[in-house]
Amino acid sequence: MVQLGIIGVGRIGKVHIQGILSGVPGTHIRGIAAPHITEEIQTLARSAGAEVLTEDFRVLLRDPHIDAVLICSPTDTHADISVEALRAGKHVFCEKPVDLGLVKIQTVIDEVAVSGLKYQVGFNRRFDHNYQALHRAVTSGKIGQVQIIKICSRDSEPPTPKFVPSSGGLFLDMTVHDLDMVRFLSGSEVEEVYAAGSVLVDEAIGRAGDVDTAAVVLRLENGALGLIDNSRRAVYGYDQRAEVFGALGCVSIGNDAPSTAVLSTADGVTSEKPLWFFLERYLSAFQEEVRQFIDAVANDYPVPVGVEDARKATLLAMACTRSARERRPVRMDEFYDM
Amino acid sequence: MVQLGIIGVGRIGKVHIQGILSGVPGTHIRGIAAPHITEEIQTLARSAGAEVLTEDFRVLLRDPHIDAVLICSPTDTHADISVEALRAGKHVFCEKPVDLGLVKIQTVIDEVAVSGLKYQVGFNRRFDHNYQALHRAVTSGKIGQVQIIKICSRDSEPPTPKFVPSSGGLFLDMTVHDLDMVRFLSGSEVEEVYAAGSVLVDEAIGRAGDVDTAAVVLRLENGALGLIDNSRRAVYGYDQRAEVFGALGCVSIGNDAPSTAVLSTADGVTSEKPLWFFLERYLSAFQEEVRQFIDAVANDYPVPVGVEDARKATLLAMACTRSARERRPVRMDEFYDM
Amino acid sequence: MVQLGIIGVGRIGKVHIQGILSGVPGTHIRGIAAPHITEEIQTLARSAGAEVLTEDFRVLLRDPHIDAVLICSPTDTHADISVEALRAGKHVFCEKPVDLGLVKIQTVIDEVAVSGLKYQVGFNRRFDHNYQALHRAVTSGKIGQVQIIKICSRDSEPPTPKFVPSSGGLFLDMTVHDLDMVRFLSGSEVEEVYAAGSVLVDEAIGRAGDVDTAAVVLRLENGALGLIDNSRRAVYGYDQRAEVFGALGCVSIGNDAPSTAVLSTADGVTSEKPLWFFLERYLSAFQEEVRQFIDAVANDYPVPVGVEDARKATLLAMACTRSARERRPVRMDEFYDM
Amino acid sequence: MVQLGIIGVGRIGKVHIQGILSGVPGTHIRGIAAPHITEEIQTLARSAGAEVLTEDFRVLLRDPHIDAVLICSPTDTHADISVEALRAGKHVFCEKPVDLGLVKIQTVIDEVAVSGLKYQVGFNRRFDHNYQALHRAVTSGKIGQVQIIKICSRDSEPPTPKFVPSSGGLFLDMTVHDLDMVRFLSGSEVEEVYAAGSVLVDEAIGRAGDVDTAAVVLRLENGALGLIDNSRRAVYGYDQRAEVFGALGCVSIGNDAPSTAVLSTADGVTSEKPLWFFLERYLSAFQEEVRQFIDAVANDYPVPVGVEDARKATLLAMACTRSARERRPVRMDEFYDM
Repeated sequence: MVQLGIIGVGRIGKVHIQGILSGVPGTHIRGIAAPHITEEIQTLARSAGAEVLTEDFRVLLRDPHIDAVLICSPTDTHADISVEALRAGKHVFCEKPVDLGLVKIQTVIDEVAVSGLKYQVGFNRRFDHNYQALHRAVTSGKIGQVQIIKICSRDSEPPTPKFVPSSGGLFLDMTVHDLDMVRFLSGSEVEEVYAAGSVLVDEAIGRAGDVDTAAVVLRLENGALGLIDNSRRAVYGYDQRAEVFGALGCVSIGNDAPSTAVLSTADGVTSEKPLWFFLERYLSAFQEEVRQFIDAVANDYPVPVGVEDARKATLLAMACTRSARERRPVRMDEFYDM
Repeated sequence: MVQLGIIGVGRIGKVHIQGILSGVPGTHIRGIAAPHITEEIQTLARSAGAEVLTEDFRVLLRDPHIDAVLICSPTDTHADISVEALRAGKHVFCEKPVDLGLVKIQTVIDEVAVSGLKYQVGFNRRFDHNYQALHRAVTSGKIGQVQIIKICSRDSEPPTPKFVPSSGGLFLDMTVHDLDMVRFLSGSEVEEVYAAGSVLVDEAIGRAGDVDTAAVVLRLENGALGLIDNSRRAVYGYDQRAEVFGALGCVSIGNDAPSTAVLSTADGVTSEKPLWFFLERYLSAFQEEVRQFIDAVANDYPVPVGVEDARKATLLAMACTRSARERRPVRMDEFYDM
Repeated sequence: MVQLGIIGVGRIGKVHIQGILSGVPGTHIRGIAAPHITEEIQTLARSAGAEVLTEDFRVLLRDPHIDAVLICSPTDTHADISVEALRAGKHVFCEKPVDLGLVKIQTVIDEVAVSGLKYQVGFNRRFDHNYQALHRAVTSGKIGQVQIIKICSRDSEPPTPKFVPSSGGLFLDMTVHDLDMVRFLSGSEVEEVYAAGSVLVDEAIGRAGDVDTAAVVLRLENGALGLIDNSRRAVYGYDQRAEVFGALGCVSIGNDAPSTAVLSTADGVTSEKPLWFFLERYLSAFQEEVRQFIDAVANDYPVPVGVEDARKATLLAMACTRSARERRPVRMDEFYDM
Repeated sequence: MVQLGIIGVGRIGKVHIQGILSGVPGTHIRGIAAPHITEEIQTLARSAGAEVLTEDFRVLLRDPHIDAVLICSPTDTHADISVEALRAGKHVFCEKPVDLGLVKIQTVIDEVAVSGLKYQVGFNRRFDHNYQALHRAVTSGKIGQVQIIKICSRDSEPPTPKFVPSSGGLFLDMTVHDLDMVRFLSGSEVEEVYAAGSVLVDEAIGRAGDVDTAAVVLRLENGALGLIDNSRRAVYGYDQRAEVFGALGCVSIGNDAPSTAVLSTADGVTSEKPLWFFLERYLSAFQEEVRQFIDAVANDYPVPVGVEDARKATLLAMACTRSARERRPVRMDEFYDM
């Protein structure tokens, strides 16, 4: 039985607690830390059977019964808490991003190396049933050598203007998932990126110095080419599609919908829109990543997504940001001395 | 908090316990009864936080803390336990079928009437996301007056020859779900049935006096026509489709698949097969029906599927059986004096 | 070069002339007969390069250069003209139905036997790309022994009340195509039919003694079961789908649409409606059946659909009519002494 | 009646002749020119009713009865014959590309301006039913302001190594269609292109100095972004898809297939591959473009695709070529002084 501590009970923290209760075997939520304990959190802790409920996450780090922590606190605390947790001897599952800057990510990398503990990063999409099927088709050799990878990722609703400045920008906040997915699907590293951005959804995003629409071309080390397109607002729902094309074929995934119902009337043939909200769309992926983390801790397996993956995706997102700003392709070796 | 007792921990009992733990709010599993308590059941009871674990279901019926029971025991015990439970003052959720015969079903109906307690029957498909979407499209008036209802229901694997004699036959075991669905979707009663059966899957089924392939035509009181086709074995998976056609359009539902992945190669364009097993296909429906049962108990709402629905579906299945045997259409008023 | 005479230049006649001009090799339209020659028909004849244009079809039958005729005249003249044409030594392609009654069909059968000439009947759907693909999948053995055949055939617009009395009724006018298709796809004869009809689309159809909605169950000699559903009005377009289920799998065909465009908006995900009109839907099938007829004539091959097929489909449609009227299954051997 | 001359009877010339015969009203093929008249061409000319068959295309240019010519000769003769034809007073439909270089295209532009005659270029895809539906959805305003355009275009078979050097390279030979499509769909001009190429299909193509796989990002003047991906070999067939995403929704088109048949077996759910060959895929588009050309000539309408469109698409393809070679984005105003 892996004893867990949950640090942070915002939107994602609740999703993880619910996911663990409804089907992550071999674990028990021993403690929960939240900066302000509301009545809702108290109820949640009780239904989880948590023995400890505290406003100070360090209480969990000092608890000798706790084996591992899930860090679901605000982004700018991820790296610091990660380091503290590792020093306290806890395995760590950390929500993405580990940090928006490379320096702090490197601190975590160093600490992971020293500690010998498990450290998993929450790139949840790798655990989604559709992306998993895509990945299996690629790695099984069914499509042969990978030649083109395409990712289409569009949010259903743009962020509030308030969020934009702290997000790191579209490439670090949104494209980073797609960049990680290209690495995951191709099994290859990226050599060069070219990113073009535009402000078409909300001028406030532009005034905040960010873009809301983007197109990215990647050149991979194995010669394959990648294409990503992003938008901050798809009015028909959260649009998450991907395609890998190779020497022997092509495999693609589409969106999930609430039902398979198709309505034919004089107005047309209508099916359901994609699921609207990313938490709904990736609900089981959030559960599956924790399941595999618990597995890795319990059986001393390697984690499926490590901090080095976070570092590489962050580097790629930074290269996209630079490319879009300087309007030129950016080779990844520009970052090698960092 | 509705205190629950679970009677029977076979395949379906486990599904219900798991479903309740992972997301039926407002309830607690207080007791579990199983004829032989294995280690697996002990573990399950512990993780459910059940205070009582017994080999005698009457212990649960006598427990004053228990408000309601889920009857998941073998089919031939459903009616008797139902009556006992109602007499003990417990609300009842009973897995289908209530009984294969009308006499015992009537006893339950009488007891429900006398007791004033909630009694829900496990026609799980009514709670499935696809059928729900179909039902909403019909009741919302989007397709106008219903004219044709089609249900295609095919099992992935035939029953063992051993099971056939106790099953009541294909119409009572399998078609009964589709007959209930026609009533649910049409909002109308059936006036006449015509059923044709064939033995094409397994001759052992034929030797046991049953059929394994069937086609049914229904004439509804509102003039609409129904068509059902069944097979005991669809090699590509559990095939569950339906369509309602009306004056203003048509709405249909297809199968669920493990992923949306589509593979295009020199051999063709291939997508995933339907989910294979009915428990997997209807997992969330099993949870949703219990959720609504708990709701009905907690708030004194009417149950969404009552014992009268079970009686009517059983009558229709019997009429199909008679029709197939006597090779003639059977009017439902032949059964009115029963 | 097969020299053709076209008898009748109504809707279907024009389709055939256009089809021949745009791609039936090895033939020339030598003559056209129409009861009233309009300017439009004169233009058509000119563009076809037809040497003869006459108001008397017997002029074509007497023309020694003409090898074969296409009979596209009104239904009640099909059989008589067929017999005359055969007696005049012409091969015949006759639009469906050969006749609405068995007596005249038998006269044609006898005359075909005596003459040794080719006689093809216009069951155009057999030549449609979708039904052809379905047929190939079945005959190739890909789905194993056929167990269930389902045909869904719904018109986009009901006939005018005026047409109903001369149509022979829904089963002879509309279902006859589906009955022929069951024979074509199954490679088996029908043993018994059960048909239920309803008047749900237009009460005037009911007053004319016909039904506008139907459900049919067929029992085939090889044990397979068939299900057909028909409606005189599908508001979303001409609905033509079919499915064959067998021991090793299932193959189904859907509708053709004007384009593959899919529109996703806040209102839903919408694709195009099925093609609206049967002539548009089966345009290339009308061409293909004539192509194969010309082939049969030129190379003395057997015709792909003979008058015996017409007789059998008519018998089945009559059995459906009788079944619906007498509300009982009708065995085909009731007709054997006819 | 527009009197036509056909210059060149290779693959495309035959497609056009066949298309005209099977359904381009208001025109007659008066003359056909082919450098070597084979028996096959003689037969074709006869069935077309052509009065003139010559090995010297200038015979057609001098024929006073001929109103317009279709230039279907080898690429490197297009521009010169175009100029001669215009000087001879003939309207011209010229297969793409007008030329691989800007100088000759400019000569044609000048001659068109001087002559006041119709000059249409064979960007056939604009006339395809799927692209037409896409275009209608965009121009009707259904998806609002265009933000992202994606084109996926992959050949089923790579060109022979012999063809590569004379093709102008992948961007001028293949991407040029997609670049034209972006202009057509967006109604906007391109401001900047970035193209990445790779040799993944056939090393001989690389040795010939070309690429066989490409990814392109376009920045449009209206702020929208475009993404194109190309491959010289998709083993599953000719892959032609596109998508336009806007403020109010998204519209996409998929491939056409020979039938709608779907086969479900123990191995999976399989549908048909896309049509294999571009001539088959765009057959009706080849006919439609000529139909509209004849219309333009007969009624003095503007042509739907003019030589200026050819010039702009060629410029874009050149910019892609330059971008891929110099590994940098290329602004279209680099070409403004040309």
